[in-house]
Amino acid sequence: MGVSLDQLNAAAREEFVALLDGTYEHSPWIAERAHAARPFRTLAALKAALAQVVHEATVDEQLGLIRAHPELAGKAMVAKSLTAESTNEQSKAGLTACTPEEFERLQQLNRDYNARFGWPFILAVRGPRGTGLTREQIIGTFARRLEGAAEFERAECLRNIHRIAEIRLNDKFGISPSLGDQVWDWAEQLAVHSDPGFKEQGQLTVTYLTEAHRACAAQLRQWMLEDCGFDEVSIDAVGNVVGVYHGEDRTAPRLLTGSHYDTVRNGGKYDGRLGILVPMACVRELHRTGRRLPYGFEVVGFAEEEGQRYKATFLGSSALTGHFDADWLTQRDAEGITMREAMVAAGLPATLEAIEPLRREPARYRGFVELHIEQGPVLDARDLPLGIVTSINGSVRYLGEVRGTAAHAGTTPMGSRRDAAAAVAELVLAVERLAGERQQVVGTVGIVEVPAGSINVIPGRCRFSLDLRATSDAARDELDAAVRAELAAICSRRGLSSQLDRTMIAAAAPSDPALQARWEAAVQAQGLPLFRLPSGAGHDAMKLHELMPQAMLFVRGGNEGISHNPLESITADDAQLCVETFLHLLEQA
Amino acid sequence: MGVSLDQLNAAAREEFVALLDGTYEHSPWIAERAHAARPFRTLAALKAALAQVVHEATVDEQLGLIRAHPELAGKAMVAKSLTAESTNEQSKAGLTACTPEEFERLQQLNRDYNARFGWPFILAVRGPRGTGLTREQIIGTFARRLEGAAEFERAECLRNIHRIAEIRLNDKFGISPSLGDQVWDWAEQLAVHSDPGFKEQGQLTVTYLTEAHRACAAQLRQWMLEDCGFDEVSIDAVGNVVGVYHGEDRTAPRLLTGSHYDTVRNGGKYDGRLGILVPMACVRELHRTGRRLPYGFEVVGFAEEEGQRYKATFLGSSALTGHFDADWLTQRDAEGITMREAMVAAGLPATLEAIEPLRREPARYRGFVELHIEQGPVLDARDLPLGIVTSINGSVRYLGEVRGTAAHAGTTPMGSRRDAAAAVAELVLAVERLAGERQQVVGTVGIVEVPAGSINVIPGRCRFSLDLRATSDAARDELDAAVRAELAAICSRRGLSSQLDRTMIAAAAPSDPALQARWEAAVQAQGLPLFRLPSGAGHDAMKLHELMPQAMLFVRGGNEGISHNPLESITADDAQLCVETFLHLLEQA
Repeated sequence: MGVSLDQLNAAAREEFVALLDGTYEHSPWIAERAHAARPFRTLAALKAALAQVVHEATVDEQLGLIRAHPELAGKAMVAKSLTAESTNEQSKAGLTACTPEEFERLQQLNRDYNARFGWPFILAVRGPRGTGLTREQIIGTFARRLEGAAEFERAECLRNIHRIAEIRLNDKFGISPSLGDQVWDWAEQLAVHSDPGFKEQGQLTVTYLTEAHRACAAQLRQWMLEDCGFDEVSIDAVGNVVGVYHGEDRTAPRLLTGSHYDTVRNGGKYDGRLGILVPMACVRELHRTGRRLPYGFEVVGFAEEEGQRYKATFLGSSALTGHFDADWLTQRDAEGITMREAMVAAGLPATLEAIEPLRREPARYRGFVELHIEQGPVLDARDLPLGIVTSINGSVRYLGEVRGTAAHAGTTPMGSRRDAAAAVAELVLAVERLAGERQQVVGTVGIVEVPAGSINVIPGRCRFSLDLRATSDAARDELDAAVRAELAAICSRRGLSSQLDRTMIAAAAPSDPALQARWEAAVQAQGLPLFRLPSGAGHDAMKLHELMPQAMLFVRGGNEGISHNPLESITADDAQLCVETFLHLLEQA
Repeated sequence: MGVSLDQLNAAAREEFVALLDGTYEHSPWIAERAHAARPFRTLAALKAALAQVVHEATVDEQLGLIRAHPELAGKAMVAKSLTAESTNEQSKAGLTACTPEEFERLQQLNRDYNARFGWPFILAVRGPRGTGLTREQIIGTFARRLEGAAEFERAECLRNIHRIAEIRLNDKFGISPSLGDQVWDWAEQLAVHSDPGFKEQGQLTVTYLTEAHRACAAQLRQWMLEDCGFDEVSIDAVGNVVGVYHGEDRTAPRLLTGSHYDTVRNGGKYDGRLGILVPMACVRELHRTGRRLPYGFEVVGFAEEEGQRYKATFLGSSALTGHFDADWLTQRDAEGITMREAMVAAGLPATLEAIEPLRREPARYRGFVELHIEQGPVLDARDLPLGIVTSINGSVRYLGEVRGTAAHAGTTPMGSRRDAAAAVAELVLAVERLAGERQQVVGTVGIVEVPAGSINVIPGRCRFSLDLRATSDAARDELDAAVRAELAAICSRRGLSSQLDRTMIAAAAPSDPALQARWEAAVQAQGLPLFRLPSGAGHDAMKLHELMPQAMLFVRGGNEGISHNPLESITADDAQLCVETFLHLLEQA
């Protein structure tokens, strides 16, 4: 059994289509068009080529592909159109064992969904791990997606079809992503630890030095030592978990990598953690096959990046760059516990004398690399598993308020108004327009509020926020100036006053060209197209940038890249690509 | 002593200017141009003509007039430019007795104001009653106006100059507005009663059947009986204070008038109350001079219009139209007290049997007239004391929400966003545009809020309200349809969903042509220009409209017509015009 790439690459068009039969439901045109893209270096390259065909198809063809699929749990409707693959998948997901209530709920969802969108709901019911979603997960996803906009839902259906095809191809090729499965399972196991109040609700929250946080550190340490074969593993004075896999030359500068294991409140399982678990899987694979790199490889699980329990964002990486802030030690959490007290309770020395030596000597390192879930929709929308980070964006943030005159909504003529919300409305659209017409910048007004607004009162005040980011400081500053000029012009034209308080400014961290080139070579070695994008979010690499060259790799997040949310998702296949790509970088560096 | 209108009307230009010397500070051009408008039937006509000259002057001339004024408390700067009138006024306001701190504060305000606007701060320091503002009021007004926009502040200076001129003309003519003073003083005395929690902070709040509310009713009843000479005065089963001044023919249909004596929280002293106090002053004047009208005159102080303690807006007038809602009796206030309990505590019967007979028989009435403060900026902006109401606007209100997708502000490209706040921003501007390009409609988005908005999260939800009003139901419905179509188009274009819940709809109440004509004749008899406007706010007349013909008269509110606010203001001179106009209507009807 099993089709091979060689077979496919050698096949004429008709045979090629036959070999791929059943991958995409009743839609041989996809394989037909992908034939021209042979030869495929990897299975990932084949998957990417097939997805690209669908991407470039007409909307009618895409809708035809969607409509070729049966409804979920459509027992009464399956008849001739349900393929063997579909039956197998729906049965793996337990849909054939629905209770009468679940069946009725699914039927109602099917009706509502069809009425809303005019096509059947498509979900890869075997899920991101390939082992099947629960009926509860399926119904929850169905209900959630029913609320979406048609254009986005169509794209989400196509992405689920690609995921279905991916699993079918794995079966066809007799391949399973075992390294990716390992990473995925570690992430699940690490997620059993959660802070009190969240764990009970099934939510993941791990903040600095709580019991759950220390359990995560202990777990990572144990895996590194016992499962992966790191040579040295320690928990440092701020709680970072540091593993070293020695190279052939112990004096050669090391490669540093890592990411954080703390989370936001009710966060996802991959934000940060993937950047620890993937390099762990690499070391495990190197150790298992008895391989040593020419240089030492140091993997750090940073204890704190999110700034949730204490306002000490990037605490973990700051300790490595020598920027641990002494004032942090006296900061109190919501319950009045100082960080120093929390450190003592965690068995840490809690002194600056113990923390200062954590600073790394740049000359002893080749640089810093970090793998991270994208936390955005770009890769997911393009059906691309991996993306090369060109720069971590610089940013500036403001809180502002426009002040006009509160007045009676009925008695004040349109021409006599000083409506603060109308001015902020203009600003929101100006930010959208100014950021949209520029390259490599984003601008967001996340807070909009008429304080104590009333339905029958013209807004006299309106609060707002600004968050402007760009791949370079110059681009950030140019956008910043344009937005502020627009605000001034709006207020002047409308006879209003405004206030703007800058709450944050951060410099951009462009990727080191040599390290970025290594990521690119590694991605190309997977047979994947190169795609470069900036990082809009801050990452530990941004701190390390102050000390040494750095470059990041992004992996796509499912569910349109949602992050800081329990819906954050990656597939085991994408995790597999991460490990293979990282291994390539390590062995080539 | 004293100049007379006859003298002025007979005077040649040079003499005319000399007679009016000192009315407008160092600006004889105003009198020069007003000369052409002779003859003046009334002092009010002269004041209006002078204001009209300034209104039609160039901006440079207006600024010249403003700059002809001295700074407030400018002891060090007065020198030759301060007129005797100015010195007198500043001394009456106690500005010559400033503490060193107050003097320094005023100097700083003068400097800031001059730097901001480039002209001196102008305030009619003798105030709306003509007896002088306190130093605290002056400094408070100064600080508040320093925050305004230049164009509006210039107009506010000119309005204060007209008020200064008005008081100077009263002095010159040896006239004082004694009927207006009476009304103004009654309003002050009524305002000493305020609900607990507000009274202590010097705020005016009188809600249905509280102790302060019952004190107001008792006070009105006492004034009607003892000071005004009403023939019958009672407090009815819902707390309305009803006074009747019999006519020569007791069987002739009566004229009904009235307004409400309850207030919003931290409201003004004139909203509602002026429409009780002015007719009271009329009866007082009729009784004092021994005059009877041919028909009975019934004045009602409505107990409830604002719907503050209970959601029972227009309760007082609803009792008169037979629309008292039985469910109101079981409604509870914020402290859990039912309306029935509150009625019993106030000594009212609290039964529908007692309330139903309050319904008025339309055949027994000539109609309903109501005088009300405008609660808007229209008359104030035009320097017109009185305005004829053509219609009480119909309205419709909605609460809505736009739903998009919350996403990371840094990682989500501009083109991939489903920003709910951006859609609401478009809606806010669409409402402004659609209402602005139509006649006789207004539209307001008073509530805008991104629930739990974060500076670094693209808004996934945005709540908003809509308040649309028009002089006719057809115009309201046309605007309503246009706004809802725009919302649908915005959401469709952006791939968002929205929800819209209608919370209120009310029909327009056009004025009865015959009653409106009587108001117009009465205003013209004052020598004042006719100005017609719709009422954007709802009033008791809107309820009475269901039963009998009605028409309203508006008097201007100072401070740009601000209402539902302690800054709500009228002058004693405008109150005098109200009484004289109302008397004219009574004697002519």
